[in-house]
Amino acid sequence: MTPGPGLQRTLLPKGFFASGVNCGVRRYRPDMGLIFSDVPATAAGVFTTNACAAAPVHYSKALLPGKGIRAILTNSGQANAATGEQGVKDNLAMVEACAAALKVQPNEVLVASTGVIGKPLEMDKIVPGMPELAARLTDVTENFALAILTTDLVPKSMTTMVALSTGVVRLTGIAKGSGMIHPNMATMLGYLLTDAQIEPGMCHLMLKEVVDESFNMISVDGDTSTNDCVFMMANGASGISLAQQKDIQTFRKALLEVAQFLAQSIAADGEGATKLVEVEVRGLPDVELARVAARAVTTSPLVKTAIHGEDPNWGRILAKLGTAGIPASAFREMNLSIQGKEIFKNGAPLAFDRDEVRKELRLSKVRIEVDFGTGGHRATAWGCDLSKKYVDINTEYS
Amino acid sequence: MTPGPGLQRTLLPKGFFASGVNCGVRRYRPDMGLIFSDVPATAAGVFTTNACAAAPVHYSKALLPGKGIRAILTNSGQANAATGEQGVKDNLAMVEACAAALKVQPNEVLVASTGVIGKPLEMDKIVPGMPELAARLTDVTENFALAILTTDLVPKSMTTMVALSTGVVRLTGIAKGSGMIHPNMATMLGYLLTDAQIEPGMCHLMLKEVVDESFNMISVDGDTSTNDCVFMMANGASGISLAQQKDIQTFRKALLEVAQFLAQSIAADGEGATKLVEVEVRGLPDVELARVAARAVTTSPLVKTAIHGEDPNWGRILAKLGTAGIPASAFREMNLSIQGKEIFKNGAPLAFDRDEVRKELRLSKVRIEVDFGTGGHRATAWGCDLSKKYVDINTEYS
Repeated sequence: MTPGPGLQRTLLPKGFFASGVNCGVRRYRPDMGLIFSDVPATAAGVFTTNACAAAPVHYSKALLPGKGIRAILTNSGQANAATGEQGVKDNLAMVEACAAALKVQPNEVLVASTGVIGKPLEMDKIVPGMPELAARLTDVTENFALAILTTDLVPKSMTTMVALSTGVVRLTGIAKGSGMIHPNMATMLGYLLTDAQIEPGMCHLMLKEVVDESFNMISVDGDTSTNDCVFMMANGASGISLAQQKDIQTFRKALLEVAQFLAQSIAADGEGATKLVEVEVRGLPDVELARVAARAVTTSPLVKTAIHGEDPNWGRILAKLGTAGIPASAFREMNLSIQGKEIFKNGAPLAFDRDEVRKELRLSKVRIEVDFGTGGHRATAWGCDLSKKYVDINTEYS
Repeated sequence: MTPGPGLQRTLLPKGFFASGVNCGVRRYRPDMGLIFSDVPATAAGVFTTNACAAAPVHYSKALLPGKGIRAILTNSGQANAATGEQGVKDNLAMVEACAAALKVQPNEVLVASTGVIGKPLEMDKIVPGMPELAARLTDVTENFALAILTTDLVPKSMTTMVALSTGVVRLTGIAKGSGMIHPNMATMLGYLLTDAQIEPGMCHLMLKEVVDESFNMISVDGDTSTNDCVFMMANGASGISLAQQKDIQTFRKALLEVAQFLAQSIAADGEGATKLVEVEVRGLPDVELARVAARAVTTSPLVKTAIHGEDPNWGRILAKLGTAGIPASAFREMNLSIQGKEIFKNGAPLAFDRDEVRKELRLSKVRIEVDFGTGGHRATAWGCDLSKKYVDINTEYS
């Protein structure tokens, strides 16, 4: 699945509703979004490992994995990170206002924030906006997917049908990432919603595994946000539960596909990006090493600028792989290809038609494959090129 | 000591000579440099940890620390990395040609290369150039310091006099770094030369300690080269030896000062850089954590672009520190200042005059200080801002 412009009108799974409104924090664009389930749902979450994690991260983390979750509230414009005790209070007040508007309990509402670090939430705008946010719930993702964006160019969401042994369930993914509208860290937010019935433990396990192969494998600039969250909600409204092993596998595969689609969409919409870069590293003795190696290549500014310049500069790729912890001996068997063209084989550079590869690098997706042939593990990472626009966006923001 | 344009005519310590010539690998600029001691010298080295280390790295590493070293040969233009068995042979042939021209043994000659990865050395140009290189030895660093440059804008060298209890010794440092003339990794090379007499073990220990607080604390783009080397040679030609503990301390201090001057010069001359960035992290329970934290800030593209935009964006600094492994509790006591202005105190943001700090950020050196107040260790790292010129240099090189 190659990410393109987000599908703006995506039907939600049964029992899920979403909305997005402008409460006045931003001038025109929607700045508050809400996901609501009309029945209590199982939910799980994975969160940033940043030691300066934002107030909403601490709040949501404490509730998950769990049952009985009804909503996910998200505001954009202010990250509520590095806001101290006031940030914790504001977060709770925002949740309480939302719960009141939805007529549910505060501990049934999850929350995520994205925006400027260190700026207090504008509570005088956010709290009065809640009734409208609750009143505007619809069965499509559109307004929510827009409300959570910062400098993203396109909304990112998709819905897929998953045929299980006892019926079909729906699975929706929505994400944002890589933007900033103010001096601020990018924040990656992901939402995975299904009307299948799933136990909290399995929900959490499945989410963690899937995130490790999707959202955790992307990088735009190598900096980890204070506000990253990926939530999963399963409300069981389809009446179909994930009981049989075969169904679990089928569902997990669909979940991974949706998560990878969203992750690729974020990388492709990275600040200043003109190309999505996919790096697959194969043939290593353990998966963690393969992940570190694949991510190392996607985070190298020298590789990113070379790709921006559409130059098959394999020396930069090799040098970056050399710092990933792979033993020197493994490089003697290394194969490397760019856009399917072999560049390096059995540890030695091949003569290749540079102009032909250059032409292939004009495409909007660049694929680099590396095979060490010394083990059965592989990993894929996604990133983007580094352009002058990235510097513009992050220098001339004010 | 603030780095400025390199002092082009720097007198070498007693018994040391240096030269630089053009052998034809590059069109006009000198591309081969030589340092020679007229008496055998103690020598030590520290080398890249890249698993794809170049042939000259493996060669020089095997000879150090040691006694009886007479010369360091350096070619620029071709890194002799990822060149396989041919690279090992070429390296040896280059060393043998140099040793013959100097009338010394091959195992008395160290070697370093910098330039394009994966391109074989042009032996037909390098070998015939050796007699001229040996014939042009002088007692100043000038030609050598120029011959080792790639895309560096200025040569980098300095000489200092160190007064020991039994007399004065001379200490010279020469370095290059941060440039590329072709699709290639930047390489950092450093040379520390003294006419003091020092034992190999002490030479190695002192070099390692000093490099950890200087060259190992700089970053331009976060990518580790395949060819980094720092060499130290002590030829004893002054007749003064480092015997007393007090003299060792005095000399080590001078060595650190020279190494930090060179390291700062490299950071300030980073590709596309307009500002030197110095980050000091204090008050942590161990020095390794302080080093990781200080380096994390200097490698963040978001911090680097904010500084390029002359904006005191402390949120980006805080978020980056949050990923450095410092416990969350330490942030509650954190103080942060930019250009000496307090921005964050006891874990909370202060109201500060943004325009005043902006004005201070127009200077060519930016200093960020962070104090966690939870231990007695500190570290300082150096980097540079990230400009559109960086993207130009690394995109439009061909």
